Amino acid sequence: MPRTDLPFEELPHYRAAPTAPADFDDFWAQTLDEAARHDSSAVVLPHASPLTTLEVADVGFAGYGGHPVKAWLVLPRQRSGRLPCVVRFPGYGSGRSSPLDALEYASCGYAQLVMDVRGQGTNERGTGDTPDPEDSPHPHRPGFMTKGVLDPRRYYYRRVVTDAVRAVAAARTLDSVDPDRVAVAGSSQGGGLAVAAGALAPGVAAVIADVPFLSHFRRAVEVAAEGPYLEIAEYCRAHRDSAERVFATLSYTDALNFASRATAPAAFSAAGMDPVTPPSTCYAVYNAYAGPKRMRLWQFNNHEGGGVFAVERNLAFLAEHLG
Amino acid sequence: MPRTDLPFEELPHYRAAPTAPADFDDFWAQTLDEAARHDSSAVVLPHASPLTTLEVADVGFAGYGGHPVKAWLVLPRQRSGRLPCVVRFPGYGSGRSSPLDALEYASCGYAQLVMDVRGQGTNERGTGDTPDPEDSPHPHRPGFMTKGVLDPRRYYYRRVVTDAVRAVAAARTLDSVDPDRVAVAGSSQGGGLAVAAGALAPGVAAVIADVPFLSHFRRAVEVAAEGPYLEIAEYCRAHRDSAERVFATLSYTDALNFASRATAPAAFSAAGMDPVTPPSTCYAVYNAYAGPKRMRLWQFNNHEGGGVFAVERNLAFLAEHLG
Amino acid sequence: MPRTDLPFEELPHYRAAPTAPADFDDFWAQTLDEAARHDSSAVVLPHASPLTTLEVADVGFAGYGGHPVKAWLVLPRQRSGRLPCVVRFPGYGSGRSSPLDALEYASCGYAQLVMDVRGQGTNERGTGDTPDPEDSPHPHRPGFMTKGVLDPRRYYYRRVVTDAVRAVAAARTLDSVDPDRVAVAGSSQGGGLAVAAGALAPGVAAVIADVPFLSHFRRAVEVAAEGPYLEIAEYCRAHRDSAERVFATLSYTDALNFASRATAPAAFSAAGMDPVTPPSTCYAVYNAYAGPKRMRLWQFNNHEGGGVFAVERNLAFLAEHLG
Amino acid sequence: MPRTDLPFEELPHYRAAPTAPADFDDFWAQTLDEAARHDSSAVVLPHASPLTTLEVADVGFAGYGGHPVKAWLVLPRQRSGRLPCVVRFPGYGSGRSSPLDALEYASCGYAQLVMDVRGQGTNERGTGDTPDPEDSPHPHRPGFMTKGVLDPRRYYYRRVVTDAVRAVAAARTLDSVDPDRVAVAGSSQGGGLAVAAGALAPGVAAVIADVPFLSHFRRAVEVAAEGPYLEIAEYCRAHRDSAERVFATLSYTDALNFASRATAPAAFSAAGMDPVTPPSTCYAVYNAYAGPKRMRLWQFNNHEGGGVFAVERNLAFLAEHLG
Amino acid sequence: MPRTDLPFEELPHYRAAPTAPADFDDFWAQTLDEAARHDSSAVVLPHASPLTTLEVADVGFAGYGGHPVKAWLVLPRQRSGRLPCVVRFPGYGSGRSSPLDALEYASCGYAQLVMDVRGQGTNERGTGDTPDPEDSPHPHRPGFMTKGVLDPRRYYYRRVVTDAVRAVAAARTLDSVDPDRVAVAGSSQGGGLAVAAGALAPGVAAVIADVPFLSHFRRAVEVAAEGPYLEIAEYCRAHRDSAERVFATLSYTDALNFASRATAPAAFSAAGMDPVTPPSTCYAVYNAYAGPKRMRLWQFNNHEGGGVFAVERNLAFLAEHLG
Amino acid sequence: MPRTDLPFEELPHYRAAPTAPADFDDFWAQTLDEAARHDSSAVVLPHASPLTTLEVADVGFAGYGGHPVKAWLVLPRQRSGRLPCVVRFPGYGSGRSSPLDALEYASCGYAQLVMDVRGQGTNERGTGDTPDPEDSPHPHRPGFMTKGVLDPRRYYYRRVVTDAVRAVAAARTLDSVDPDRVAVAGSSQGGGLAVAAGALAPGVAAVIADVPFLSHFRRAVEVAAEGPYLEIAEYCRAHRDSAERVFATLSYTDALNFASRATAPAAFSAAGMDPVTPPSTCYAVYNAYAGPKRMRLWQFNNHEGGGVFAVERNLAFLAEHLG
Repeated sequence: MPRTDLPFEELPHYRAAPTAPADFDDFWAQTLDEAARHDSSAVVLPHASPLTTLEVADVGFAGYGGHPVKAWLVLPRQRSGRLPCVVRFPGYGSGRSSPLDALEYASCGYAQLVMDVRGQGTNERGTGDTPDPEDSPHPHRPGFMTKGVLDPRRYYYRRVVTDAVRAVAAARTLDSVDPDRVAVAGSSQGGGLAVAAGALAPGVAAVIADVPFLSHFRRAVEVAAEGPYLEIAEYCRAHRDSAERVFATLSYTDALNFASRATAPAAFSAAGMDPVTPPSTCYAVYNAYAGPKRMRLWQFNNHEGGGVFAVERNLAFLAEHLG
Repeated sequence: MPRTDLPFEELPHYRAAPTAPADFDDFWAQTLDEAARHDSSAVVLPHASPLTTLEVADVGFAGYGGHPVKAWLVLPRQRSGRLPCVVRFPGYGSGRSSPLDALEYASCGYAQLVMDVRGQGTNERGTGDTPDPEDSPHPHRPGFMTKGVLDPRRYYYRRVVTDAVRAVAAARTLDSVDPDRVAVAGSSQGGGLAVAAGALAPGVAAVIADVPFLSHFRRAVEVAAEGPYLEIAEYCRAHRDSAERVFATLSYTDALNFASRATAPAAFSAAGMDPVTPPSTCYAVYNAYAGPKRMRLWQFNNHEGGGVFAVERNLAFLAEHLG
Repeated sequence: MPRTDLPFEELPHYRAAPTAPADFDDFWAQTLDEAARHDSSAVVLPHASPLTTLEVADVGFAGYGGHPVKAWLVLPRQRSGRLPCVVRFPGYGSGRSSPLDALEYASCGYAQLVMDVRGQGTNERGTGDTPDPEDSPHPHRPGFMTKGVLDPRRYYYRRVVTDAVRAVAAARTLDSVDPDRVAVAGSSQGGGLAVAAGALAPGVAAVIADVPFLSHFRRAVEVAAEGPYLEIAEYCRAHRDSAERVFATLSYTDALNFASRATAPAAFSAAGMDPVTPPSTCYAVYNAYAGPKRMRLWQFNNHEGGGVFAVERNLAFLAEHLG
Repeated sequence: MPRTDLPFEELPHYRAAPTAPADFDDFWAQTLDEAARHDSSAVVLPHASPLTTLEVADVGFAGYGGHPVKAWLVLPRQRSGRLPCVVRFPGYGSGRSSPLDALEYASCGYAQLVMDVRGQGTNERGTGDTPDPEDSPHPHRPGFMTKGVLDPRRYYYRRVVTDAVRAVAAARTLDSVDPDRVAVAGSSQGGGLAVAAGALAPGVAAVIADVPFLSHFRRAVEVAAEGPYLEIAEYCRAHRDSAERVFATLSYTDALNFASRATAPAAFSAAGMDPVTPPSTCYAVYNAYAGPKRMRLWQFNNHEGGGVFAVERNLAFLAEHLG
Repeated sequence: MPRTDLPFEELPHYRAAPTAPADFDDFWAQTLDEAARHDSSAVVLPHASPLTTLEVADVGFAGYGGHPVKAWLVLPRQRSGRLPCVVRFPGYGSGRSSPLDALEYASCGYAQLVMDVRGQGTNERGTGDTPDPEDSPHPHRPGFMTKGVLDPRRYYYRRVVTDAVRAVAAARTLDSVDPDRVAVAGSSQGGGLAVAAGALAPGVAAVIADVPFLSHFRRAVEVAAEGPYLEIAEYCRAHRDSAERVFATLSYTDALNFASRATAPAAFSAAGMDPVTPPSTCYAVYNAYAGPKRMRLWQFNNHEGGGVFAVERNLAFLAEHLG
Repeated sequence: MPRTDLPFEELPHYRAAPTAPADFDDFWAQTLDEAARHDSSAVVLPHASPLTTLEVADVGFAGYGGHPVKAWLVLPRQRSGRLPCVVRFPGYGSGRSSPLDALEYASCGYAQLVMDVRGQGTNERGTGDTPDPEDSPHPHRPGFMTKGVLDPRRYYYRRVVTDAVRAVAAARTLDSVDPDRVAVAGSSQGGGLAVAAGALAPGVAAVIADVPFLSHFRRAVEVAAEGPYLEIAEYCRAHRDSAERVFATLSYTDALNFASRATAPAAFSAAGMDPVTPPSTCYAVYNAYAGPKRMRLWQFNNHEGGGVFAVERNLAFLAEHLG
């Protein structure tokens, strides 16, 4: 896999013009207001597991439209006081998976909340339990990228971003969580959602966005060689006169536009040979990010990015910002 | 592309055990009864086109749940009396496309009705205009194969098969159509739907099923190397304990089970090197088919099957059965 | 399939230096004079078909060297007076196929003449019936690109371009055709031939060149990732000292050089992610085109280009220019 | 990815003839005796980590030839008495990785010891810290499969299997570990090593072998389509007269021959569409296994096998056998 | 590359029914008689080269239709008396290449004659200088497999096989060659031609056929995954009704039918994982071969077969039979 | 295979900054001094072969660390006086192969010495007989690129480059060789070693470096799409913090740094569409080369470069410089 995006030395300087439509802020204010009409308390059910050092709960909360969204809460069995919390969002196609896939932050002393992404959760690396009531009664195989893509209000990711913001609110209602120390995190789709939730949910303490997806769609659709951006390219390939309308819708959920509205400290990463979320698109979002920030380029990596090296780096970043 | 399914000489003898559940007939009787509560008259709107020898109408009818389904009606401008009609169903991912893609039967003197497949219609070879109201507000990119696949009543193809049966009923309400001479036809997904509609809609005059999809799922999912059967394999790959439940659902829409209930004369084809709808799965359906039948193996072909050679063969078959 | 040619915004500005040798015009004048010594009348045999709205004839005419070339003539059964005519040239490897593949222009009121490309006609999407007497007794599988490529006078495409020009002349001899309203059209190889015939045949009324092949060989051979340009690259890869001689021959049949001599109104298209006829090579020809012109970029498309969207656009263009 | 090995229903019946040479048992007795001359005590150094529920130690022990081999020991910070222990072996190319990749068994109350595989440890999913002193001063990129493959005594896996047996001995010397409750576990290469160590190390309490590699080399080299078995095929492809000698060496480290000597209870898995460790080779080892055993076929899975579903199943199996 | 043809142990037993038409012998007798009307003397021109131990001549002889065919003659500069001679035929797409590619037999004391294959000779591994006068004025890129394939008398390989037979006759006219000790040899296409020439040219002393092509077309076209057999599959894929006619033509040049008429001692080889000339097709010819014979299976090899190991084996075979 | 490196017209101008560390010259002086402590005389054993015009000897000499390295010496049986000598180094993965693969220079009057590359020699195109005593007891399958790559003194290629320099010294001790007329040559890895040996061994008469590997590692690892440079990329992909250390080691064996110290006349080549040793990296070395030089770009070639055309060119170059 050779480099197929910009040369490494040009990446730090890559910037993209913002694409937010005039009503971007109104759109999200209204969307979140509607969602906030539903009770934001998490419903927490103890969940049996073979884990002995950690405790698991099956969490439900009201997402977009008041639709029930599932999450795993994993936290140290031994604890005192309220914990800082990391709300994590999965990658494209996956769901919250098993609690056994959510050990790393909890084993380091955090309350870890892993949100399901509605409709998704059908991936050999992780399944989910949350359907999208505006779609199918169970999670299913992609594609999701172009559902409702001709209309910002009906677009699939409007619902998912709203869920992500609501997950932060729900996390704050948990007994075990210190509401002032809630971070959002994710890789790929999860990274894009972390930027969105970090910008839209007030008072997020830190944002972790590894190889973020949903970022600078215009370029991404042109240069990505694999992965879900191709669904958009395929849509435009079929509906040959709809591209402008498609990109207009996408601008409402483009991390580029959330980044410029963000204030929380953020840790980004990009991978130099990533065909799924090309590094230039990650840098575009990073360079647009308005809060305190850092970036790590995993120069020779594909979409796996930093892997466990990134986890270690993210834990240090959290320690710095969540105490 | 070498042969990857059975040797050619074994294909004619390949048979599969039927998989229909005990309530198969009740399931469809009840499903179609529910659909029949909606008015089956087609709404026909003249549609301007550059065609001079043919006339086009934009047709709408009430499909599953009474949901509006679109179709193109194309028919000879010069005609006398009611015409025999061919109801055609598109391949996976495509929609009714443009009327300019529906010329061949109409130019031969048939009323050609091309049904949209709800939700689909996002393919560079043909778009559609019919959303699935239980899903997205507009057609979008696949996948569709695993929507609701854990529950026969919520499964996506229950709706699509119902639409196909309703399309036959709608065709019979058209002024231009002789209700006693309605055939169903299609290739790939369209072929599977033709078998289904031919079995479920009473009095269908002829069935054309080229390289049919939705056929003998159990083997198909094991041997298909490309195409939409892989969505099912991927689903089972993720939801590792759900395979039996998945195949139980699929048995309600497997052409294998419609075939054994069919009576209309049918023309089948299979392609010897087809990685999408492997020939053994087509022969399994053919061998199960209970009506008068013929089969053509396009020995060296991939999923394109007979192409225009098949069109010529199908026109001869129609002439024989629709007069 | 990501973009592999120039960024979309650079395409409109891409220009190539002309490559026509000094004797280019003499070469073609002499070539066409020789061909014109043969009778240009089309031999028209009625051809039985299942079509009822259209009439088919099996046409033969004398092409390069007086060699017999076949074509289908398809035209509305109901007609009055002479019709405007569209002479269409197939894509690489294909032939005139079945008349059932030649319905769209005829169904819109044109006489549609589909020329065989000598020697080709062995493609699962369309066969042909015209051998190249300087080659094999029947159509066969490619390659054709490097036959005689060391000598402009013996080069295969000298014969094919001549056939294309002769097809226009033959069309004009048809009773059903208005000789003042003959257009040439094609996609890929057919698009390149349309540019050539449009420039060489006097009085062509309109030219349609979708994703044209045979265009700006020098760059095409360097950047095409799939398709017949690779045959030339492979030839030069083997005959390592022959590249200059090869490109010298190709310059006689490069659409780039026909374009700068053209006067007929032309409709071009290019596809932004086309690995077969890379969009920069199409723009090079378009920008060199000396007549009235329009261009459509199908930004997200591969070599299928506009598909039926292009057909609709082409019909509008023809209506404008052929009345 | 269609099925490329035996049909699912034939797998349970697939058996292979044993290939152990006459001196197999002597070979290993002598090999392990030599290794046992080195002190088997583990050297345990506390290791700082961000983990709060778990404790990490950097462990070293004397492997084959007395060479130092590294491992991570991860265990619950809160514990009382000696713990049952799981010795885990990595997949091909990987090393012990970060302790953050070794949380699942420790979080369930086990002492988890993850052994480095000498020389390997250069994989984007996990690095290692143990060179092979008979090779390079640091871990490096594969291949390892054919190092010394012409001589059983010099063959690379003789050293690695010995390390694995020594890891069990070392685990028993740990203060925190109950020496009567030591299990071995792994996936792919790790699974093959678990079968070997389970057979060679006396008193192993349980064996977990997911999609085991190093299994039935003769068939594996013939049918594997990806992965490290191909290194052997490539070796034989080059050294055309050496195949018998190669397979003779491999018979000393083939899990097939360890399996028939095993007594510990074992949990196996295979994946129905696995191109790396084809399921028939896993079943061959399973069917040869002489101890109490169970098998799970992940029918639609590739080499990822059961993923987290397998972890859950393995934890239940351990609970049953290690208490 | 896993095995895709029969398991190794089944290969020795694989036999195919002969396919020779009734007039097979007459066809070739007549064909060779016609060719024999042309003078069979080789025209030998000294050729300058940097070689000092060997001498090169540029040879021409009259092939099929009396058409001039080129060959290189390479022989030891130091020699006494007439030499045994090896006539070698190139692989598909290649030509006689440079004399520098024809050193191995000559350096071992043989007169080596390397024949051009008419029309071919456009491959990065070797070019040629002999056009096919019934085709193009210069060698060009394939395909050649389907030229004239509907008519045995016009089929391309009728000419090439005739050339191969004539090359043997021409070799016998060389001053340097002992006409009683002429062997034919080749790999892939060259191997198929060696079998043909060995059967048709009287008195050939030995035949070497490595991984022979042109062998058992019926199965080859069904199972080959790469290479020139695919041209035939593609032809049949396009001309869907012509397959029987195609295979009827191919039966005249199938090595299967030459093999059963052969008497010269022959050395065959096949490669167990060869996707171009699948081993079962080589064994079919070997098992049909009527003369003394040996076979070597290169079990783990792809189409390269034995490589230089085969050269060594072939030299030993020649020493045995040519003295 | 389209062009994936710089446009052809930019290649001649591509230059890279030198990367030699400050102690580069000391490093090699010391390395070679250590090696020179071992006797440099070649041990020459006659070797039976079927060759009659040439004579073969099995040569051994003391390479790095005094380790025995094998080579074939092939030379004309008829000779008078000492011959000019070509020392040839194989490509990556291969060894000295059979003497039958070493005919071309010997047949032109040179003593040809083909060195084994320690450890390698396991390739279907050529095997070897020389293990690397710091590694495995026999040649084995790659990878070799990252063995010891964290330490210049332990790096694998330090040993191989030393062997190459020692091969020149050994060649000069041969009775048959004129020590003042020794050239070094190779393609790919062999080309990189030729540049290295040409710079480090005093008095080399000529250097032939076709499509050289080991050249400008920094860019090569970024743009190569196939071949052994990828092993380095994969190493850095795993050991994410080690890239600078890796490239520091590589700078000691980068042909870029040898080139700027060279004085012998050199013939280079590059291939315009080479994904293994991208042409820009070859030009970087060529442009850095300090001696008299020539370059040939095989514009349309992949990694095979000039093939036999290059051999012819190289023979002319040798004739010019070795007389």
